[in-house]
Amino acid sequence: MTRRGPAADAALALGVEVTGTPKPGNVDRARDFPDLRFEQFLAGAAGARTGLERAVNGTSVGAAFEASVAGMSRQTGGNTQFGCLLLLVPLVAATRGPTDAVCVDRLLGEVREGADTQEASDPADGGITRERVRERCRETTVADAAAFYRAFEYVDVAVEEPPDGMEPLDVRRGADAVSAIGDRELTLWELMERSAAHDANAHEWVNGFPRTFRAARAIRADDGPVPDRVARVFLDLLAEREDTLIRTEHGPETAERVRERAAEIDSLAAAADWADELVEAGINPGTTADVTSAAIYVAFRRGVVP
Amino acid sequence: MTRRGPAADAALALGVEVTGTPKPGNVDRARDFPDLRFEQFLAGAAGARTGLERAVNGTSVGAAFEASVAGMSRQTGGNTQFGCLLLLVPLVAATRGPTDAVCVDRLLGEVREGADTQEASDPADGGITRERVRERCRETTVADAAAFYRAFEYVDVAVEEPPDGMEPLDVRRGADAVSAIGDRELTLWELMERSAAHDANAHEWVNGFPRTFRAARAIRADDGPVPDRVARVFLDLLAEREDTLIRTEHGPETAERVRERAAEIDSLAAAADWADELVEAGINPGTTADVTSAAIYVAFRRGVVP
Repeated sequence: MTRRGPAADAALALGVEVTGTPKPGNVDRARDFPDLRFEQFLAGAAGARTGLERAVNGTSVGAAFEASVAGMSRQTGGNTQFGCLLLLVPLVAATRGPTDAVCVDRLLGEVREGADTQEASDPADGGITRERVRERCRETTVADAAAFYRAFEYVDVAVEEPPDGMEPLDVRRGADAVSAIGDRELTLWELMERSAAHDANAHEWVNGFPRTFRAARAIRADDGPVPDRVARVFLDLLAEREDTLIRTEHGPETAERVRERAAEIDSLAAAADWADELVEAGINPGTTADVTSAAIYVAFRRGVVP
Repeated sequence: MTRRGPAADAALALGVEVTGTPKPGNVDRARDFPDLRFEQFLAGAAGARTGLERAVNGTSVGAAFEASVAGMSRQTGGNTQFGCLLLLVPLVAATRGPTDAVCVDRLLGEVREGADTQEASDPADGGITRERVRERCRETTVADAAAFYRAFEYVDVAVEEPPDGMEPLDVRRGADAVSAIGDRELTLWELMERSAAHDANAHEWVNGFPRTFRAARAIRADDGPVPDRVARVFLDLLAEREDTLIRTEHGPETAERVRERAAEIDSLAAAADWADELVEAGINPGTTADVTSAAIYVAFRRGVVP
């Protein structure tokens, strides 16, 4: 099947991520929170799409991320997909192959001319590799870092205290930190390097997205409806490494305890029981959902079709 | 809140339509069919977006519809949103005001320059009126009709026998009917006029979308989460007029019986019980869902925010 374009795949990854259920502690197809609802994630995905298209069309990673977050914020639930977009935008920007518009033109041509032009030009890797996304991240500039900081102005994002010496660059200062960035001449890559030890998304950024690509392989190797595969891979990711958002909001002991418990869950039914417990305790594995959405994108690029 | 652009609103309307539950007889947030699943509707919406953007950017209604349907078809569930797009594309094409890209630029400007530039230029009617969409539909050409026929090549669409004398124009002939269109010099508007008596979507087309705008008013006047409003307005629409798809698949008696039964349903709980019955009988009010999605679009344009 001739594929969708990269922006469509990324926006759909956001929608399918939130559809996968049970995803213990998170909003999903079967669960809303009192102040955060499923449809607000769909609205976030629809709003982010223009920024994702800019990433496809060569806009810098920082500017495309800022535009994606700005669009995502046009709903009343608050921060739905900031972390997802932080992973998806460089992946989309690093993807080679036809743009969304060209993919559609190709489809139209197939019907009008009766030809299937896909095989020759669609790479088996879906146009995206670990090396390519790492290279794209490394190329980011001080301007990308400034755009990243501005993105915090659109939504409230839960983050940890900055490391020692990094206080002027506290992302919670939003655009006020932009001049500090300029003074220090830190690129977005360098910022991510400084956070990689304690932030799972930054760890993906500076290491060529190892967990993302591993989880994408698991989604492809699995079978059944894609949202069920998503729920299973979410649990695997949660069992594999402490969730950064849980650590930020509840401390490292809780994060480790949740990780250990996830490793004991052996079915989606058991996960559903556990989900109630996590929600009652207000524990939200948000960073694991970020990596999950990135993995869905890579799986789509490499041939998974809902 | 500064709004999303028209293509984002239309793609989101598709997602929110399928999220509303219970929508008796249809796939929704709480129900899959064995061969048609929720996430395939999300994939249809993500795939249609490029075509919807073309409608925003001035591509003719027929070509933008064909592109939307082509993109929508990139999932394994078959026809998810052909009828929805037949209503959404002219609505999007007729919408005045900033494009999706301009909406995002405006948001970025607000943060960068600290200004809120929205109020001056966003019309209260959301840029879309009955008169405007009727005019846009009236302007369609023979080329738009040909593109409409080609769109049937991408998915299987359930349609009735054509009226007497219209056999060469049977949409089931797909692209093979295109030359017959050219011979008769029928515009897409004229085709819709010929179907308006028995097809609810064609009736919207040639009458300035009366049910769509009425249902949009109901969504705005209602309160609570948007998908709940969607489920209520879906029932109202189903009670108001025979569903074309039910009529096509099961005959006019069944369609009338379903309409009468819908009129007796007085709560979402009662609708949920009824939903099981309809699904068992294989009765699928698809055209009512089409009008619902169009109404959601208009409601979004006029200020409803998930």
